[in-house]
Amino acid sequence: MIIEIPTHSDFSIHNIPFGIFSTPTSSPRVGVAIGEHILDLVEVGNTGVFDFNLDVLNKSYLNAFIALGKSVTSGVRRSIQAWLQDDNGPLTAAMFVKQTDATMHMPIKVGDYTDFYSSIEHATNVGKLFRDPENALLPNWRHLPVGYHGRASSIVVSGTDIVRPKGQTRPDPEAPPVYGPCKLLDFELEMGFVIGKSSQLGQTITTAEAPDYIFGMVLFNDWSARDIQKWEYVPLGPFLGKSFASSVSPWVVTMDALMPFKVAGPKQEPEVLPYLQCSEDYNFDINLEVGLAPKGQAETIISRSNYKYMYWNQLQQLAHHTVNGCNVNIGDMMASGTISGKDEKSYGSLLEITFAGRQPLTLETGEERKFLQNGDELTLRGYAEKDGKRVGFGSVSGVILPSNS
Amino acid sequence: MIIEIPTHSDFSIHNIPFGIFSTPTSSPRVGVAIGEHILDLVEVGNTGVFDFNLDVLNKSYLNAFIALGKSVTSGVRRSIQAWLQDDNGPLTAAMFVKQTDATMHMPIKVGDYTDFYSSIEHATNVGKLFRDPENALLPNWRHLPVGYHGRASSIVVSGTDIVRPKGQTRPDPEAPPVYGPCKLLDFELEMGFVIGKSSQLGQTITTAEAPDYIFGMVLFNDWSARDIQKWEYVPLGPFLGKSFASSVSPWVVTMDALMPFKVAGPKQEPEVLPYLQCSEDYNFDINLEVGLAPKGQAETIISRSNYKYMYWNQLQQLAHHTVNGCNVNIGDMMASGTISGKDEKSYGSLLEITFAGRQPLTLETGEERKFLQNGDELTLRGYAEKDGKRVGFGSVSGVILPSNS
Repeated sequence: MIIEIPTHSDFSIHNIPFGIFSTPTSSPRVGVAIGEHILDLVEVGNTGVFDFNLDVLNKSYLNAFIALGKSVTSGVRRSIQAWLQDDNGPLTAAMFVKQTDATMHMPIKVGDYTDFYSSIEHATNVGKLFRDPENALLPNWRHLPVGYHGRASSIVVSGTDIVRPKGQTRPDPEAPPVYGPCKLLDFELEMGFVIGKSSQLGQTITTAEAPDYIFGMVLFNDWSARDIQKWEYVPLGPFLGKSFASSVSPWVVTMDALMPFKVAGPKQEPEVLPYLQCSEDYNFDINLEVGLAPKGQAETIISRSNYKYMYWNQLQQLAHHTVNGCNVNIGDMMASGTISGKDEKSYGSLLEITFAGRQPLTLETGEERKFLQNGDELTLRGYAEKDGKRVGFGSVSGVILPSNS
Repeated sequence: MIIEIPTHSDFSIHNIPFGIFSTPTSSPRVGVAIGEHILDLVEVGNTGVFDFNLDVLNKSYLNAFIALGKSVTSGVRRSIQAWLQDDNGPLTAAMFVKQTDATMHMPIKVGDYTDFYSSIEHATNVGKLFRDPENALLPNWRHLPVGYHGRASSIVVSGTDIVRPKGQTRPDPEAPPVYGPCKLLDFELEMGFVIGKSSQLGQTITTAEAPDYIFGMVLFNDWSARDIQKWEYVPLGPFLGKSFASSVSPWVVTMDALMPFKVAGPKQEPEVLPYLQCSEDYNFDINLEVGLAPKGQAETIISRSNYKYMYWNQLQQLAHHTVNGCNVNIGDMMASGTISGKDEKSYGSLLEITFAGRQPLTLETGEERKFLQNGDELTLRGYAEKDGKRVGFGSVSGVILPSNS
């Protein structure tokens, strides 16, 4: 090995995720996370080992690199895996930067962003809290992957502070609405996948074709202002309750790296329409956890969930999204919706964990939380592990700042 | 005048809208519509009259030109107005192309697209048809400009054929959903405005600041698949019922050109919260009409409406959109929602005109329509006129093609 990779690192030799980093002496560029280091792909490219235009590596976003196509990008990943184990290969110690010396940037220029609602546990929990406990799941839910268009401009990279949004709410349904800082600020534990190949307007991507269009995945925190959302969302869906920010982890883990962790999804009943049926499993066993740390204090793990719980998988989401001819572009982001498991310890939002604030959560510090408070740091983490091989996502964090005056 | 401008042209000397055109001998570039011609701004720039980087004119989208800022782009407009009347100025006949010899392209690279729902007549009509006739307007409607995120990738320029979308519907609420071509295909008469200045995440744009962020306007047809929409849209809003296509007119009419047509909007009751109050009028008296032509037959004008009917104006829409700190970028598109007037002859969708298909419309050809049929050409037109000065948008058209097999 050219460099040492700590045991249990998310960024093992089996992973090789791509991201955009800079250092005090280098502009934003494509890198690969490996152990506690980043391999600078511009420096690797300068040795002449790549047969594509090196400009795609010297960019502020991964989009141009991804546009080379999977035959190229998958090849780059395999080559790096081989070179890391080849003391006589092209890699030298000077091509590695310590992650602690680098700044990570938003990895993708997101064109359109779609948020699905594909966890049956989450949809059921929210339906009980917001609508009818007896009919929590709406009639369409088991027939199609419900989703909506989200705001792409406000997707930010991990580490970006989250300013508490202001807006209009109606805390008293008998009184007029009021304006002010959100009082019910929440996170949502999600994962997102990144489109790696563009389609044409009018074209439908089948579930069989879909894997070719998916480049990789990130952790995704869909910050939510529950009081703003509740007042605004009928009849056209979430808008300002979500659009103030969403946060993503900086390393895009490729689907290549995740293939060993494929598992079957939940049985779908009733049977779905043919255009939503899949001939392969496409759920992934990815352990997820959520940590909440009040300002200057230790973190409490407030939820442990798993991406394998998804009722609707990515192939179904993409086939449904394009069944009407809607085109997708490289860099589009499709998020899962909140990933909740079956019990309270696996819920993916404070809304669910605290039953809409009715049952406060006690942190290990002794503090209580119904929703997020200023100074709180919220972190999502995720990794897959099997047969001693670990492929992880690192984390996505954000600290809540008070509203602007 | 260097060239002749027909009386009653939408593209009078008072207009000077910007667009992207190409010809068999020139690549896509910035042009200005004037009468039946296009002034090629690359050719104008080559004379040395502009003091900005001419690269922004040699682009496939207006975004870089708009990014020069209003002080520059408004100056370009005023200069062109002066030069058109100056026989000794920099313009020569060779700089003009006939519109019939040019191909128009999508004028803007749209980042995020938002669709509002700001016509009280439309919201009331739809509420009656889809929900409760007694409580057609939902409780939030008069307190905030309801809106949702739309799909940016599928916004196309006038003249692009519209393939009838396929998807999932549930015509019989007692039976399982079915898959197939949309049977209730509709248009929506809207206008869109284009963001001309970017804001930062966390920044709020006040109604007083908003005019500085708005570059200009286009006609906007928000094609809608009513049967798909009806089944999918609860609880997260419209998705595939809209995302298959939206069409825009090719010429972006600047707010500068529209200022003479400013009028007061409808009185808002109850009074809106302070962040939504405006110190200036910002409705516009823009005559709108909708034409429907069955394949190979004459067009019937099926609706005449006006943009001045909007209950919520652009300043309120933009202030609301950013009140939570959501950032906007140059090229973002914000559409009005369907612009319906008070009576049936001014409704902005077939859903409303035919009362959801219950009362078919008879065209001048004798044919009936409940919704759009294959081969139909649907055209929106709009213009403002006052004191003999006309500023028009031209049109946005699309022909319905059968679904792909």
